[in-house]
Amino acid sequence: MSSLSFLSRPPSSTLLRHHNTTLTTTTRTHFLPLNPPKHLTFKAFSSPSPIQPLTQDDLKKLAADKAVEYVQSGMVLGLGTGSTAAFVVSKIGELLASGELKDIIGVPTSKRTQEQAALLGIPLSVLDDHPKLDLAIDGADEVDPDLNLVKGRGGALLREKMVEAASDKFVVVVDDSKLVSGLGGSGLAMPVEVVQFCWKYNLIRLQELFKQEGCDAKLRLSDDGKPYVTDNMNYIVDLYFKTAIKDAWAAGKEISAFEGVVEHGLFLDMTTAVIIAGKDGVSVKSK
Amino acid sequence: MSSLSFLSRPPSSTLLRHHNTTLTTTTRTHFLPLNPPKHLTFKAFSSPSPIQPLTQDDLKKLAADKAVEYVQSGMVLGLGTGSTAAFVVSKIGELLASGELKDIIGVPTSKRTQEQAALLGIPLSVLDDHPKLDLAIDGADEVDPDLNLVKGRGGALLREKMVEAASDKFVVVVDDSKLVSGLGGSGLAMPVEVVQFCWKYNLIRLQELFKQEGCDAKLRLSDDGKPYVTDNMNYIVDLYFKTAIKDAWAAGKEISAFEGVVEHGLFLDMTTAVIIAGKDGVSVKSK
Repeated sequence: MSSLSFLSRPPSSTLLRHHNTTLTTTTRTHFLPLNPPKHLTFKAFSSPSPIQPLTQDDLKKLAADKAVEYVQSGMVLGLGTGSTAAFVVSKIGELLASGELKDIIGVPTSKRTQEQAALLGIPLSVLDDHPKLDLAIDGADEVDPDLNLVKGRGGALLREKMVEAASDKFVVVVDDSKLVSGLGGSGLAMPVEVVQFCWKYNLIRLQELFKQEGCDAKLRLSDDGKPYVTDNMNYIVDLYFKTAIKDAWAAGKEISAFEGVVEHGLFLDMTTAVIIAGKDGVSVKSK
Repeated sequence: MSSLSFLSRPPSSTLLRHHNTTLTTTTRTHFLPLNPPKHLTFKAFSSPSPIQPLTQDDLKKLAADKAVEYVQSGMVLGLGTGSTAAFVVSKIGELLASGELKDIIGVPTSKRTQEQAALLGIPLSVLDDHPKLDLAIDGADEVDPDLNLVKGRGGALLREKMVEAASDKFVVVVDDSKLVSGLGGSGLAMPVEVVQFCWKYNLIRLQELFKQEGCDAKLRLSDDGKPYVTDNMNYIVDLYFKTAIKDAWAAGKEISAFEGVVEHGLFLDMTTAVIIAGKDGVSVKSK
């Protein structure tokens, strides 16, 4: 299903628009052929020192730096939410400060990101004023082989989906622990944003919808034990599956059909490329 | 498509479950055959005096009284929102106070209705505790020949849809000015509840979705000129169509697919019966 290619320069928009999934593994120093034989694997060591093991944060930062290579001056940019996305925002701030990037407008996907970007001096806007974005960069909680995602463990799924669906390209940054063979398969939360009104009613309906997948549904709580409230004043019901979701497209439609469900964390057919940081370096998988 | 029948007693659950649309025109004094020849029309004058013209409120009250005949002791009842639904709630309160009805539990569809019902001493619950309702009664803004509805001009569309979708039977009460040949055809608002975040972005997307129907989309404002905020802390975008919506089912799906749309005012295939008050009396149309 996927072919492999290698390059050291920032991926071009042509590459990003490929319809077949393409895996590119990158170094910063060598130019490699775009279309090598299939099944050939090339691992590039981007670690500053191959002796010291990379921390999770090192990996996130490596992948974030790679993702920022997609950014060009003059772009309207969707700014994601979460620990990996924070590295992306930070890097964009650096490049703007140094003058390497110019005329960037950022559209943040959460209040947290908005605050971080504002502190870094990134000019900001909203979808109301910039309904079409050139590129969005964000993390993800799960990535399947077709680049479909689970997102929203950070709590910002609705705004992320609004901004990222409005973007011409959507680049996802993850470490390789986020790769799954089927969505929901990590056993970690798949979030559903619901209105506060009768959240328990919807929690039970959601749990029953995924009986076959051994679903356990839980209201997300804040550190103080009170229900977590999203930027949109809603609650989040986290779904935990024993087995991966059988048909993510059908699942998405069925969840959305429940009255009182505002958004769900399945991001299907939205991703242009995924930057994957592993202990052996950074690879790029694109569609 | 529809057949006509007549009766004076409260409609039975058998009648309510008919799959073919049935129009029943009622008096309070005569028992009439259930299956008269098709196309036969019988008008029953329920006006207290045929000389004085009935006001809009008289009509609403007549229809509300008729709807309450569907209520039986022991029922869990969805209580609608709006001027007609308020007459229904008021009548249920009366019948409980007089002892004609007993053991009713009301599930209100808005804070307003909750307050009214509480003042009348109607025992109240929520979907969380009563996820299955026997009957819901509510008004509507438009009713098409297949008993599909536009609702939500009162601002409570989400809670109404949640409660009414959870009800075994859903009886709608309207005056005959609400009958349309196609939904959206009244030229009045078809509401869409959207999150506050980037409402303008969604307003424009909604307006463009219905370009063919000559749609004008407007943010609903309160009397003080500020955006109207729903019980769920969202905004409402009102859609005004020059011509009726061509395919209400497709429209519903397309509206729901927009990220940031919480609910829309198309209530499709939900209605069991419609009580229609006209200047000549009250008629019942059921499915």
